[in-house]
Amino acid sequence: MADGSEKNAVVSNKKVIFKDYVSGFPKESNMVVTIDENLKLKVTGDSKNILVKNHYLSCDPYMRLLMKNQSTEIFDPYTPGAPITGLGVSKVIDSRNPELKEGDLFWGITGWEEYSLLKSSEGLLTIQLLVNFYFYKMIKGMPGLTAYGGFYEVCAPKKGEYVFVSAASGAVGQLVGQFAKLMGCYVVGSAGTQDKVELLKNKFGFDDAFNYKEEPDLNAAVKRYFPEGIDIYFENVGGKMLDAVLLNMRVRGLIAVCGMISQYNCDQPEGVHNLMSIVYKRVRIEGFAVADYYPQYSKFLDFILPYIREGKIKYVEDIVEGLENGPTALIGLFNGRNVGKQVVVVASQ
Amino acid sequence: MADGSEKNAVVSNKKVIFKDYVSGFPKESNMVVTIDENLKLKVTGDSKNILVKNHYLSCDPYMRLLMKNQSTEIFDPYTPGAPITGLGVSKVIDSRNPELKEGDLFWGITGWEEYSLLKSSEGLLTIQLLVNFYFYKMIKGMPGLTAYGGFYEVCAPKKGEYVFVSAASGAVGQLVGQFAKLMGCYVVGSAGTQDKVELLKNKFGFDDAFNYKEEPDLNAAVKRYFPEGIDIYFENVGGKMLDAVLLNMRVRGLIAVCGMISQYNCDQPEGVHNLMSIVYKRVRIEGFAVADYYPQYSKFLDFILPYIREGKIKYVEDIVEGLENGPTALIGLFNGRNVGKQVVVVASQ
Repeated sequence: MADGSEKNAVVSNKKVIFKDYVSGFPKESNMVVTIDENLKLKVTGDSKNILVKNHYLSCDPYMRLLMKNQSTEIFDPYTPGAPITGLGVSKVIDSRNPELKEGDLFWGITGWEEYSLLKSSEGLLTIQLLVNFYFYKMIKGMPGLTAYGGFYEVCAPKKGEYVFVSAASGAVGQLVGQFAKLMGCYVVGSAGTQDKVELLKNKFGFDDAFNYKEEPDLNAAVKRYFPEGIDIYFENVGGKMLDAVLLNMRVRGLIAVCGMISQYNCDQPEGVHNLMSIVYKRVRIEGFAVADYYPQYSKFLDFILPYIREGKIKYVEDIVEGLENGPTALIGLFNGRNVGKQVVVVASQ
Repeated sequence: MADGSEKNAVVSNKKVIFKDYVSGFPKESNMVVTIDENLKLKVTGDSKNILVKNHYLSCDPYMRLLMKNQSTEIFDPYTPGAPITGLGVSKVIDSRNPELKEGDLFWGITGWEEYSLLKSSEGLLTIQLLVNFYFYKMIKGMPGLTAYGGFYEVCAPKKGEYVFVSAASGAVGQLVGQFAKLMGCYVVGSAGTQDKVELLKNKFGFDDAFNYKEEPDLNAAVKRYFPEGIDIYFENVGGKMLDAVLLNMRVRGLIAVCGMISQYNCDQPEGVHNLMSIVYKRVRIEGFAVADYYPQYSKFLDFILPYIREGKIKYVEDIVEGLENGPTALIGLFNGRNVGKQVVVVASQ
């Protein structure tokens, strides 16, 4: 609950400011941590505004795409000079918005700063569902729902199918692999360190896993793990891995495209060459976005909470304390430094 | 009907022999026309063999792929020193196969030669359906069924949708565009000459068409014809056109991949770069092969024959007389010399 003493108080507000559009690999110096003094904890401006305190911030691969000066159907780019934004768990301090009241907790897009003045409650749609749910868990919502929608709805898996997951120890990949095992599939994951490979095999129960950085020939590697081919590829990385997978799909196989993190730092994405496999093997490739599954959030929780309680679904998070460490955590996503879901704790209380 | 006088006669047999695997653009000199003398018109060898006289041969883009030393789920490559093969309309001269008898006409894979000794009736599945159908029309079967299956089954079009067809004056494209108009879609086609563009607009009833060879910026061209984006792309060419289309798809648009002829002469296919559009726009890409729709051949004929009779579906063929002109006709496909379906007449009687 909001702390009454905070209201009307004057505080400082630490922020992670986006400096300018990024070309190539992002660096911590593309962001700068600043402090605004004298923020009055009282909502200002028009009748929809909401002043929130940010508690947990999520580091997600798509954030790299917002560092390019390019609008897409899903995202608008970051604004140079303003804080970066991302999914977070926040608490309402003061509100002129009839949808949200002081003390409400919510999960949605917020600023990378201690306090944010949000202009509307749009995009914070899940708040009603989440209010009674321990808020620290909420941040798992996005990757969980992404894995759930992407695997069960897009992939429509069947028992015994051969499933390959790239970036498999990541926030989404680790869940997809476990969902696939629950379904009775054969599951192999790829990751970028030996530790992550061990995690996939020993903690998340993948049938097998490999370190793609140690494979000089990705096509040969994929063929070695799938001598009979792949029914379902859960695509998180794109580029060379996609090319190798295309050569190893089974007839009528499916590629569910969640993201292509290997391409996010490229000014010009790598070319993918083996697309004729789509015809040879009647492959279906389908993109999706987590927002497509927001209406199923409640169904997702009903599905996953019992598994979590029984310990049948495991989840690894990589927690960084302090907003000032946020830029390092975010950049770490793109060189694979994180193990599991990367979270920044701004304020645990 | 088979001519009784042919049986037991001795004839010469002209053949188009495949010389060796081809790298880069194919040339007429990759094939050689030879004549075997003293072919006895009597079936020889084991009990499934069928001796056939070939009447019409079809030139199809996939044949370029068989000139590479590469097996796929759909095709095995040509054998150097043996005749090339392709879809044709043929007549049984003599048979030891219980499935086929002297005088039967059929449509299926045969050799590029005057007479072929086929080893089985496998792949000639449509023969029962076609026996009573004027055989010259049969050769239309494959592109027709490809267009039908690909458009109605894979694309599942709706009235008013924006449809783009590449290689639109080709055997499949011209039909897809007309099917789309019958469905009430807005249809634009691309082709490689101004004459073909006129054909698309004036004969096949496309809403608009353009010559891709005259467009320095394909993305700008596609955007000009589809300012609101593309719902359905019927893909026949791949490469740079696919990259341009990916940038111009509408959210939840569909790309049905029939072929990628622009890539067939490349030893290493061009890279396609804009695949992140699959995520941004939740695009679905789906490959298919005409063989998937063989069971629907009868339904297809019921659908299309009334339209053909009423003149509501038009069809342009490019006919070459004489097997010796076959290599030129086939090579012409890859530089766009043909207008409409390319057919080689080996023997009209």
